This record gives sequence, structure tokens and C-alpha cells, in this order.
Amino acid sequence: VNNSSARRTDTAPVAFRSGAVRPIAVADAHLEPGFWGARQELNDRAIIAHAAEWMTRLGWVRNFEDAASGSRYEHRGREFADSEIYKLIEAISWEIARGRDTHAALLNRLVDIVLAAQEPDGYLHTLFGRPWQRPRYSDFQWGHELYCFGHFLQAAVAHHRATGEERMLEGARALADHVCVLFGPGGLNRVCGHAEIELGLVELYRETGVRRYLDQASVFLERRGTGTIPLHEFGRAFWQDDMKVRDAEVLRGHAVRALYLSAGAADVAAETDDVELRSALERQWQRTVARRTYLTGGMGSHHMDEAFGDDFVLPPDRSYCETCAGVASVMFSWRLLLATGEAKYADLIERSLFNVVATSPSEDGRAFFYANTLHQRVEHSLPSLNEDGVVIRGGAAGRQAWFEVSCCPPNVARTLASLGAYVVTENDDAIQIQQFVAGVFQTSHATVRVATDYPLSGTVEIEVDAVTPGVSLEIRIPSWAEGARIRRAGDETAPPAGDYARLLGVGEGERITLVLPMQPRITRADDRVDAVRGCLAVERGPEVLALESVDLPEGWLLDEVALASDPAPAERDGSVWVDVVRLPQIDDAAWPYARPATDAAADRTGASVALVRYHEWAERGPSTMRVWIPVSGM
Amino acid sequence: VNNSSARRTDTAPVAFRSGAVRPIAVADAHLEPGFWGARQELNDRAIIAHAAEWMTRLGWVRNFEDAASGSRYEHRGREFADSEIYKLIEAISWEIARGRDTHAALLNRLVDIVLAAQEPDGYLHTLFGRPWQRPRYSDFQWGHELYCFGHFLQAAVAHHRATGEERMLEGARALADHVCVLFGPGGLNRVCGHAEIELGLVELYRETGVRRYLDQASVFLERRGTGTIPLHEFGRAFWQDDMKVRDAEVLRGHAVRALYLSAGAADVAAETDDVELRSALERQWQRTVARRTYLTGGMGSHHMDEAFGDDFVLPPDRSYCETCAGVASVMFSWRLLLATGEAKYADLIERSLFNVVATSPSEDGRAFFYANTLHQRVEHSLPSLNEDGVVIRGGAAGRQAWFEVSCCPPNVARTLASLGAYVVTENDDAIQIQQFVAGVFQTSHATVRVATDYPLSGTVEIEVDAVTPGVSLEIRIPSWAEGARIRRAGDETAPPAGDYARLLGVGEGERITLVLPMQPRITRADDRVDAVRGCLAVERGPEVLALESVDLPEGWLLDEVALASDPAPAERDGSVWVDVVRLPQIDDAAWPYARPATDAAADRTGASVALVRYHEWAERGPSTMRVWIPVSGM
Repeated sequence: VNNSSARRTDTAPVAFRSGAVRPIAVADAHLEPGFWGARQELNDRAIIAHAAEWMTRLGWVRNFEDAASGSRYEHRGREFADSEIYKLIEAISWEIARGRDTHAALLNRLVDIVLAAQEPDGYLHTLFGRPWQRPRYSDFQWGHELYCFGHFLQAAVAHHRATGEERMLEGARALADHVCVLFGPGGLNRVCGHAEIELGLVELYRETGVRRYLDQASVFLERRGTGTIPLHEFGRAFWQDDMKVRDAEVLRGHAVRALYLSAGAADVAAETDDVELRSALERQWQRTVARRTYLTGGMGSHHMDEAFGDDFVLPPDRSYCETCAGVASVMFSWRLLLATGEAKYADLIERSLFNVVATSPSEDGRAFFYANTLHQRVEHSLPSLNEDGVVIRGGAAGRQAWFEVSCCPPNVARTLASLGAYVVTENDDAIQIQQFVAGVFQTSHATVRVATDYPLSGTVEIEVDAVTPGVSLEIRIPSWAEGARIRRAGDETAPPAGDYARLLGVGEGERITLVLPMQPRITRADDRVDAVRGCLAVERGPEVLALESVDLPEGWLLDEVALASDPAPAERDGSVWVDVVRLPQIDDAAWPYARPATDAAADRTGASVALVRYHEWAERGPSTMRVWIPVSGM
Repeated sequence: VNNSSARRTDTAPVAFRSGAVRPIAVADAHLEPGFWGARQELNDRAIIAHAAEWMTRLGWVRNFEDAASGSRYEHRGREFADSEIYKLIEAISWEIARGRDTHAALLNRLVDIVLAAQEPDGYLHTLFGRPWQRPRYSDFQWGHELYCFGHFLQAAVAHHRATGEERMLEGARALADHVCVLFGPGGLNRVCGHAEIELGLVELYRETGVRRYLDQASVFLERRGTGTIPLHEFGRAFWQDDMKVRDAEVLRGHAVRALYLSAGAADVAAETDDVELRSALERQWQRTVARRTYLTGGMGSHHMDEAFGDDFVLPPDRSYCETCAGVASVMFSWRLLLATGEAKYADLIERSLFNVVATSPSEDGRAFFYANTLHQRVEHSLPSLNEDGVVIRGGAAGRQAWFEVSCCPPNVARTLASLGAYVVTENDDAIQIQQFVAGVFQTSHATVRVATDYPLSGTVEIEVDAVTPGVSLEIRIPSWAEGARIRRAGDETAPPAGDYARLLGVGEGERITLVLPMQPRITRADDRVDAVRGCLAVERGPEVLALESVDLPEGWLLDEVALASDPAPAERDGSVWVDVVRLPQIDDAAWPYARPATDAAADRTGASVALVRYHEWAERGPSTMRVWIPVSGM
């Protein structure tokens, strides 16, 4: 299927061939300095090395070395530790693909170590199957074997696409063949407690053309929802085993599981032309976005099971919004965008990238949010540490260097490394600008140069060169961008928000300017999001803003602050400022449900305060923060 | 210490002797038909038998029989299954104490079975220590050995107080001696992951006069907070092992653990005259009530760890409010009430009894709420069942027959059986009416007869007979009862709310009438309870009311309903009615954060709807429900 000589350019993470639009390769996207270019550099310079260092320090790499040695060892880390190495391999592969070989030696070493541990029959997991370990496939609920395999397959495909080397892809084929024999029709009627292998199998099919891998992904997909996973207090929905994917109306259960499953299902639907399945996924996406998604794009409001709540259960002070769920949401939306070409999917991708994925890593790339709360009430909430001094789970205040469950940092790393591939798409007639990212993007129709300091400003300059005659340029106008303008050859037009501006027949060397309206916006929530009634949020462009305690006048507490009835958001000195009032000193009543009606005429102190970009909060020492701000008098 | 001949009357659950007021015995409180009298009858008629039936069916009783037989067996139920039998024994003992022998044969049988399983060295737990089981004391985090012992001690004391029989008390002494030897000063430096044994040890000290048991309770108390429990993702605060009890400012971590610990600490403080410790507990109680308690008195806002959240994290749609936490809150408040004589503790007891404890059991006593949400968003949320068909954990909609973790039903049973002892207290000069419950209460100063249909009406008739000359009658005036009136010998006075009305020198045969204001009240929350901003609740007397979907006009959804700007709550036909409006048909926007400002002039349909008593909700088929109701235009 693939032409080996063309390999270096066929480096899209999702080699989706049958949709409304097609991706371009990582190798064909060169980001320039700017919001995302800087984060790719941070990834190359800090995040990847940081992740590798921790995985080494904690023995997650050593697990593979010990497994290869054949001697008895005590496995370090959780059931899914192997997968973190695979995500790191994937991240470095995309770095290679985009022309950065900073970590090439590390990549080679990791691939060597991993492949040495693979068993003759293709099986590869460092926690199961050796004489002193639990047997293979003895724990489908929590064992994460097939989950780890899925990440291996994704990493192997990335490695093959980036380097052209066959060795890891061969390992992936051996592993996938093992899975197909064991879990194929008539085989073990089981699915993994955590969806993921479906994604890996479809991508391996795309890379190798071996239909059996796609078929096996379908088998796993159709098997889920038939109750093969043992009972657990979290319920069958936790692992999406409560109903068949094609029958569901909304995402439910563990958010990352639900989103990986949905992304894999979208892959299967695309490759099998399963229109019913695709429609089901579009419907689920829509209802999930309408009823189970935070303003940031974050998903998951339960800490207990890291899960979606019921419709409109979206309390800001208990928002979980796992970073991996943000990454997985991008993966799901990306596949539906490729399938349908509808702008709403790119809208959500943008929202999630700016407000979840970009929020996780610290400025120095050495600490991460695992959960991304929309309301931090206490300055210090110490994380729980395990015996290694590593944070056990990430619900605490502040970014943390590493986690016992460290799925998020390498997920951020692989997303940033491959981000170039998510900016521009094409189809037979047109090029689509999906995201506004400074860089040069090579499509089959033209070279697209984008110059912008977005989201600092809303001006995006697009230049097309080496143009195929007759091709159109389609520019996404975000749904928040009422009042956007496009200038082309002296003409100015006002494209509709929430759709693509379609520019027919762009010419060689043509320059187009998009001007997005960047004045801050006041945002109100649906009444059914009960937890934010009487509050407003402020957004600017794709960025959600927040009120952080360090920006308040001396001595004010975040709890005492409300927006003025006309908060008058305005830009000044690179920040958005709003008018707030300090409520009358709070009396800590003995019983908090005996408050008299507020005296609207009570003496109040006013002030103007700067809001922080949500993704930049918690970078200036201990603080409290809220995205949804009460309005005075409500 | 105790005079055996007086045994039958010394049946207070908490034989607190050193406080501002003293309890009376269960045997000295005879409830008559009324709100609580009916529930005691329900307990006698249904709840106890239902609990016994399930404990038998699931093999939790059989565990003891098998343990006594010496043969190998597979333990059924969770680590704390033994404790449920003990709570049942305690419940039946209080039934005996109040003169009901419905379950006397069952009690004898259970005590026989339990004692037969006790080992020669006093140890008693059916899950640990046999050759095929995990060793004793190999799991302080989750093993619940000392926790079960604590319930055994409480049950044994109750059994002794109720029946005068020595055999279970002897077992308790053997068990307590075993614990003192092993865990005393210089012994194993460990505490149980779940506080409870402290309560049992102090009560056993009170019953036997053996100081060593009180000392051992102190040892466990002082040892907690020194980090003896291994690390866990829930953090050290989960088991209150993050700091010493006397150093804390607020309750935190697992709610039932925190409240049992606090109750036990209050016992230790009282018996050791530890003023510093008592002050610390009063301070913690106050801050917990002011910042971490739901309107219902419910405690615990985290599902994940069944724990208290940060201050003001009280989302109604994620309220956990475990029934056992309500019971435990009553236990803690009761001890502080006895210690201080302050009305606020009795206020919270009343609130928790009416709105948590009374909410749990169904009308037929055969189903229970484990968690008590303040906002049910979906009619059907199916519980997760285990292999026995039993609900694994109680976060689902509706009351359930039984749970894998079934701490709550027997906790309700022992509370209802002993409820008479919580109504009236006394001290050297006075009798205190703490709760308004129809019945006859024998104190050392007088016989107090209370006739009332409270809370149907607010009229409470009190008659005192056989009066010690000069004794005063002190009647709690709830803090919500502004406008209460007391009529005595033709005089009417207006006592202050939130304190006791003190009636000096009551005479033989005197009749006093208390009239509490029962008009429905509109309740507002502190602004910092962000999740209910823009909402109001309605209360009437001690009862929290709620809006349940089954009371709405045909075709209306709960999500569409707001209180009219003047909801005008009024009583009619035995219910409280409020004026509501149906908001304009909700448009399920693709993105829920793009709502335009509400058009206050929009066409709205008005209606008057009846509210349900919160403790009676979910008795009329599938429904949605909310305590906090949005106000139109906010």
C-alpha cells in the first residue's frame, strides 16, 4: 500500500484516506515561532527528556530490560507503565518526522530495549506471563494488556512513518497477529477494560494494508457492550460495556476510555464505510459537547471514576478534566473532522488544545496538570505521594513533576510533536485552514504559509505558492468569531462564524488576510449547568480566561469578589481587565444557610483586575482561581 | 461502678457522666405515635428483620458459624461484614431496653453464634488469622479488624445494659484485653484505617469501670495523625492520619471515619477532663457545620473517597451525604451536647435526624438510601450489582434493598431503636427538652409527658409530674424558630431562637405549651456555596422540602422550572405550595456556553406546585428532584 520511497512524507498520525478531507503529514508542516511553535520547542527541549528521565528513574524502562534478560524481576509501576514508553517512542518519532533529531539516540535505544523484550509469539507486556507473574490475560478489567498493545502499535506505525525502519513495525505485526489469532472470531470472547487497541489496529492496517487488523478492530468494537467485563462498583458504563457503541446516545463512563473508544470507532467506521456507525458517533459527539463538556473543552466531572457525569453535572470545583481526556477528545474530533469536514469539530479541537492540552505543562516543561480544575478553592492542597515520592493521582493543586499514573505527560508530548499535522487539511478541490498556527504547510495543491501571532492578535496572513490551478482555500471561522473579516485582493468580506470561508480559485502567490475579532467576550452558561448559575466567564479568541487570586488587590480573597454588574472587559497592557466589586466582608455564619437577601445598595469597593489566561494559571506561586465568576447582585 | 440491680434502667447508649447535661436511659423513654414513634415501630416491624434476613442470606451470619466450627470456609462479604451483625445486635438490644422483645430470640441466637466464634485469646474476626486466611493485623488500612472490634464492644455494652446478661460483655472484656496488650503503650504502634474502636473502648470503660480501656482509647486517639497508616492515593487525611485530632481545625477525609473519630475523641475528652481536646472538637464541629455541611445536615461531598470536600465544595448534584455520616454526625453532636449543654448541637441533631436518618429507609422499611443526594437529575440511574445481585455502592437513584457495603441499614436500625434516649436530658437543676417527640420520659427530677404531632404542627404540650421541687424546665428553641411562643399558666412569652427557654421552678402537674412557627421559610445559602448561587430552598420547621418531578404539571421537566420571583410559599392540603414558572422551552444548543441573556419579559407559564418533604421523596416511582430551586430571572 505504501511506497517506501515516499515514506518520509507520509507521516500523518492518522492516515485517514476516505473522509471529506485528508490530513497532511507531520513532515509537511513546519511550525514557526508562535504559540504552538514555542510549545513544540518546549517539548523538544524539555518535556520529552523530562518524561524519559522519570520513566528511567522509576524503572519503567528497566522492566523491558529485565524482561529481555529472562531473569526474575519485580515489575515497577502500574499495569500500564509499558504504554508510557510507547507514547514516548511515538512522540520522538513525530519529532524525527518534523525534522528534529534531538532525541534520535534515545529513540533507538528505547526501540532496541522494547523489541528485545518481545516474546517469540509476539506477546509483549512486562507485567504478565512469566512464571513468577500473573498469567497472561488473567485480568481484562485492570490488566491493560491490550491497551498497552494498542499504544505499541501506534508507536510502531509512527516509528515506521518517521524513520522508514521496519523493525518496530515488524514487532507490531507479530503482536497484532498474536492478538488476531487469540481474540479473533471464535477466539477468546473478551475485550480490554481500557479501549485503545482499536486505534492501533486500524492504524497498523493503514500502514500495512493487512485487512485482518482492521477486521480485528471491528471485532473488538462490536464485542464491547455485550457484558464481557466482570461487574465492578463503577458499573458497566465505566468501560463502555453497557451497550454497543452504535446504540449509544452520549459518551459515558471513564472519559479517556470513552474517547479512545470513540476515536477508534470513527477509524473503523471510516475504513469500513459504516455510515450508521459514523452517524452514531456524530450524534454522541454532539450530545456530549452540548451537555457533558466544560467551557475549556475539558471532559469528565467525576473524580471517583474519572468519568463523565450525568448531563449538566459540571461543577467547576470538582471538574476533573483529565489532560488525557483533552488529548483523546482532540483525537476523536479530528477523526470526525476528517470524515465530515465540518467546522464544529475543528472548533472543539482548538478549544481543547488551548485550554486543556496547553494548560497541562508548566512553562519549563517539567511539571504537569493531570486534572484541570475550573475552580481552585485552596492555595495548597498537597498531593498524595507514593513510596517513590511520586504523586499518586493528580487531583491536587498545582502542576506536578510526575505521577504514579503518568499517562498525561507523554500524551502531551506526542500531541505537541505531531501538532503540525492538525493545522491544514485538503481534499480534491480545496485546502482547509483548520487552525491558525504560524508555519509553512505543504499540501498536494499548494504551499501554504501562515504568518500570525494568534492568539495575541487575530490577524492571520496566509500566502499560497506553487498552487494547482482552480484550487480553493477554505478557512475555518470559529463559532465565537462573529465579525470576522477576510481581505483578499483589496476586497473585504464578512464570512459566517462556525463554518468555512470558501475562497475559490486562489492564485499563485496570493495573500489573504483573516482578521478575527479578539475583543474579550462575556460567556453565559445554559441554565442547566446549575453549578455556574449567576456566574459569567470571560473568553478572548480561543482562550478561556480566569480570575486568579494573585491578581487581586492586596488583602482581597477570591471568595469576596464578584463581577460588577457591567464588568466592561477591556484590553490593556496585554491583559484583559474586568471591573469587580469586593462584597461586604463575609461573616462566617455558624450556619451557612441563613443568609439574608443581599442588600444591593451595600457599600462595596470596586476595582479593575487583570484576568489570567487559563492555560497560564498557577505559574506565579500558590493561588486560588476561578473561571466562572459570580456577578454582583445575582 | 454500676449497680447491677439498677441495670435495666441504665440503658443510655452513651453513659456520659461528666458533662453539662446527662442522658436518660432508653428504658426511660417511651415514644408514642408520631413522627419518630412510627419510625421506631417500622424499625421493630420491618427494618430489623429485613437486615437480619439479608445478613443471613448473604452468609455474613454463617461466617461466624463456620469460624466456630473450625473447618475451612470462604468468607462472605467485605472486611467489615462482622460489624453489621454487631450493629444489629446493638439495635435489638435497644429494642429490648425500650421494652420490645419482638426480636429477642434472634438476639439470643446471634449472640450465641458470635461468641462461639471468639478465639481463646479474645480475638474475633471471621476474615483473618485462620491458616488459610490472611494473618491477623496484616492490613491496617482496609482490614477493619479494630473497627469491627469497636462495634462488638458497643453491641456488648448495649446487650449488657439491655438484658443484664454478662456473656457478651465478658467477650468484650476478653477482646478489649487482647487489644490493650497488643496495642498498648510499647505495643504495636498502629491504628485502624477506620476509627470506631475508640467509641467502643470508652463505652466499655463506662460499663465496667476498667480504666485500662479508657487509656487504650486515648492511646489510639493520640497515635492517629502520626502517619502510621501506609500511603494511599486518597491521602493521609482520608483516615485522619494527617494530623493529631487536637491540632485540626475542621473535619476532613472520609466523613464516617472523621465523625466516628470525633465522637470517640469527645468521649475521651469527657472522661479524662481534657479541656483542650474538647475545645478542639468544638472548634472543628463549628467550622465543619459552617463550611462543609449540606442544608440537610448531610456531610461528605466526594463520591470518590466518601469524604468531606474543601470548604464550600457542596454541589447538590454530587452530594454524597452517606446515611452513616448522618448517624455519625448525630453521635458526635450528641456528645458535644452532653459536654456543653449548648443548643446548637441539638439543632444539628434534629436537622440530621429529619433530613438524613429519616430519609434513608423507605416507607416499608425494606429499602434504603446509602447516599442522600440533594439533586437527582435522571429518573433512572441503575445501580451496579455484584454477583449476589446486591448493590455494590449506593450512589444510584432510589432506595435499594441491600448493599455490598451495608453499613447504613443497621446503623439506621440502632439509631431508631435508641432514639428515645436523645430526646430529654437533665442536670442537677433542670430537665432539658432537646427534641420534640411525643412520649413519656422519666428523669430523676420528674416524669415528662410530651404530646405533639410535630412536625405536622408546631404545638408541643409538655406536662411534668412527680416533680422534684425547684427543678427548671429548659426547652430548646430551634435556631430557625424566630417567633416561637411559650404558654405557661396563662402567660405567653417569646423565647429566643437558638437557645433554651428556661422555665424556673416548674410545679407538679404543670402544663406548658410550646408553639413553634411552622410557616414555610425561604432559605438562602452563603455565596461561597457556589453550586447553589441563584437558587433558594424551602424549609418548614425541621424539614427540608424539595421539588420532585412527579408533582409538576403534566409534561413539565424539572430542568425547566424556576421559582417565581416571589414564590409565596403557603400551606394547603397538608403540603407547602410555591409559585413557579416554566422557562421558555430549552433549546439544546450545540454548545451550552453561548446563552444569550435571559429575556425577563419572555412568555412564561406559571403554576403552583406542591413541594415534597425531602425525607419522603422517591416514594412515588421514578422521579427527578431538587432541594435548591433556581429563581426566575437570576
